[in-house]
Amino acid sequence: MGEGRFKEMILEIAKKAKIASKNLVTLSSNTKNEVLKRVAQKLRERKEELKRINEKDVNQALIQGHTKAFIDRLTLTDKIIEGMAKGLEEVAALPDPVGEVVKMWKRPNGLWVGRMRIPLGVIAIIYESRPNVTIDAAGLCFKSGNAVILRGGKEALNSNIALGEIFRETLKEFNVPEDAVQVIPTPERKLMEYMLELEEYIDLVIPRGGEGLIRFVTEKARMPVIKHYKGVCHVYVDNEADLEMAKIIAINAKCQRPGVCNAMETLLVHKDIAEKFLPDLAEEYKKYGVELRGCPETLKYIPWAKEATEEDWYAEYLDLILAIKVVNSLEEAIEHISKYGSNHTEAIVTENYSKAMKFLKEVDASVVLVNASTRFNDGGELGLGAEIGISTTKIHAYGPMGLEELTTTKFIVFGNGQIRT
Amino acid sequence: MGEGRFKEMILEIAKKAKIASKNLVTLSSNTKNEVLKRVAQKLRERKEELKRINEKDVNQALIQGHTKAFIDRLTLTDKIIEGMAKGLEEVAALPDPVGEVVKMWKRPNGLWVGRMRIPLGVIAIIYESRPNVTIDAAGLCFKSGNAVILRGGKEALNSNIALGEIFRETLKEFNVPEDAVQVIPTPERKLMEYMLELEEYIDLVIPRGGEGLIRFVTEKARMPVIKHYKGVCHVYVDNEADLEMAKIIAINAKCQRPGVCNAMETLLVHKDIAEKFLPDLAEEYKKYGVELRGCPETLKYIPWAKEATEEDWYAEYLDLILAIKVVNSLEEAIEHISKYGSNHTEAIVTENYSKAMKFLKEVDASVVLVNASTRFNDGGELGLGAEIGISTTKIHAYGPMGLEELTTTKFIVFGNGQIRT
Repeated sequence: MGEGRFKEMILEIAKKAKIASKNLVTLSSNTKNEVLKRVAQKLRERKEELKRINEKDVNQALIQGHTKAFIDRLTLTDKIIEGMAKGLEEVAALPDPVGEVVKMWKRPNGLWVGRMRIPLGVIAIIYESRPNVTIDAAGLCFKSGNAVILRGGKEALNSNIALGEIFRETLKEFNVPEDAVQVIPTPERKLMEYMLELEEYIDLVIPRGGEGLIRFVTEKARMPVIKHYKGVCHVYVDNEADLEMAKIIAINAKCQRPGVCNAMETLLVHKDIAEKFLPDLAEEYKKYGVELRGCPETLKYIPWAKEATEEDWYAEYLDLILAIKVVNSLEEAIEHISKYGSNHTEAIVTENYSKAMKFLKEVDASVVLVNASTRFNDGGELGLGAEIGISTTKIHAYGPMGLEELTTTKFIVFGNGQIRT
Repeated sequence: MGEGRFKEMILEIAKKAKIASKNLVTLSSNTKNEVLKRVAQKLRERKEELKRINEKDVNQALIQGHTKAFIDRLTLTDKIIEGMAKGLEEVAALPDPVGEVVKMWKRPNGLWVGRMRIPLGVIAIIYESRPNVTIDAAGLCFKSGNAVILRGGKEALNSNIALGEIFRETLKEFNVPEDAVQVIPTPERKLMEYMLELEEYIDLVIPRGGEGLIRFVTEKARMPVIKHYKGVCHVYVDNEADLEMAKIIAINAKCQRPGVCNAMETLLVHKDIAEKFLPDLAEEYKKYGVELRGCPETLKYIPWAKEATEEDWYAEYLDLILAIKVVNSLEEAIEHISKYGSNHTEAIVTENYSKAMKFLKEVDASVVLVNASTRFNDGGELGLGAEIGISTTKIHAYGPMGLEELTTTKFIVFGNGQIRT
């Protein structure tokens, strides 16, 4: 297939999405919720078929020698399929953001001015080889009135197409344009590159995944990009911390699920409590099999830790590895976070009021916590409902992106003949 | 000067802006307001000097044969200088958005979660040859805690540098990093191109101006872009409109200030009232010297109008020219707006409740009005206070961008030892 053919193909997909998106604006919440519940039901009914199709993708990935973690994310198990179905039902149960008037006020000339939530239009999502994202993302975009173009990792292509088909079939049953959900049927990178030029039809691109992909999308895209980038998250344990609490948080932030973006990657410890805090904590990490990499000061208290290099401070391990640094002050901790952090999630443990407030105000991250685990940077945990990911872009949505973050507001004005003088 | 030199120059500007921006986050509202008021005072004190410098720019532009409208926008008069000073004082009087917690709620596990407004960081603004924008934009960015890089039209360079210097001098007096406000000292387009690659230092680019410039910025920029694009604004006069009100609104929307983006460019009239409404309205437009370009149906009622071509429906005249089209229904009006409109400002005049609501809900524009002039799409008029312009990008801020729209929110979380299980 020639390159011109890819250009045509993605142009057609984008145009169809734009047309479908105009229809979605006027869809009732009831219809949207019924569609979501019906897709959930079908996923359950057709899970054996889905698993068979997924097996092809998995076998291919095994031949290509992908890691166990990669294969895990790629595999559709009963549990994952049930999770997708439940997820859709949860989104159906959430309030519809579209049409909500978030504020309304009156002007001196009698005009009533309001801000009304509307869909963004067409959203393209570029994601890893995780087929469940196909359904999660389609469900959130559909509920928020957006048409979606899905471009998952190439290893999951067959699974993604099959999942997309179930969604499209259901849309058709309910007389909703099926092009509200489209899975790009080829893994060609060139096609994605053409897609990123179509700002006339696509209103937003959300890339999830590795640095290389995100850099590529940022460079090429002409439409706005909301990055879901890495989490180099810190916990700073202050000299005035409750050390028992600090230990529990430090263990939870690292060990509860080390492979996710809101897991802690670097622990910062105030020098005055390092001797008391670190040896005890290190014993606990040992039980979880965590590899520790420390600054020279840390090594004094944890002799079995490896010495950390400059790269360790930048590292998103996503694994049972932790960098530890002893700092002289809160200010040094904040400076370290500003230099090495990724604006994702940052926590302080302290009983000192002024230091807690300083940290909250000054640290630039999508979520900043006092005396709580970094693992709470999550749409569900923070109370937004389901999320499409965690934005590390400041514009539009900084932090977890739920249904509201997939909308924008337009101004509506009720007048009775007002003119400007 | 070689190209490498431009790269270095803009990299240095961007880095300095980033450093300054970190300092701005912690600045008190009082200090910010004092700075703004002092800049206003200095503008008044030094207006003769400013006018002398501006004269150089104006003389050069006259030699180059620019239009009268262009020269008007470029010229610093007493009135314009007083307007800048007053504008700064108004911004000083507005509430500081930074630090505002827009919402706060409690989670079942006892966590308190809030969304706190923070500055975006570094904003680059690319604008026309209008020196007053230098002060307006710097004032709004500074008050909202952002460092700003200003790149105005090359014809205004000397004026912009002089105005920037007054702002910087004042920052220094108050011990605020002067690099919070930087005017790019050379008009080289290549330098702007390099700037658009610096997503590590610049958080947002706002281009104002013509189609070519906006296209260039959209293509090249790696950071988010909020476009302030053209306004092809419509007024639809329904068959159930109060025709007297419709006339007043149609005249105001076109004639009150034809050179601005929220002026009406196309009038849509329902066929059932065209015969009654159009001849009378045309007489009124004649008094204002408005050139009318109509569809064939329109020409039946206004024989002296020119025939409109396809291009007229797309045109942003910014002048005393108006396109008029007779439509068969509200639906046809909405379709016309969807096809030819620019998502800027759209108004309906009707006494019919259902049609008013349908228009409000279905028309996709940053501001949609019922029974009011399009001229109200303006931050001041809608109650946001001063504005940096009107965004036609849906992401982040759709419509007038005031102080709040120059911020984002981060999540702040108050815990007492919560972990995830």
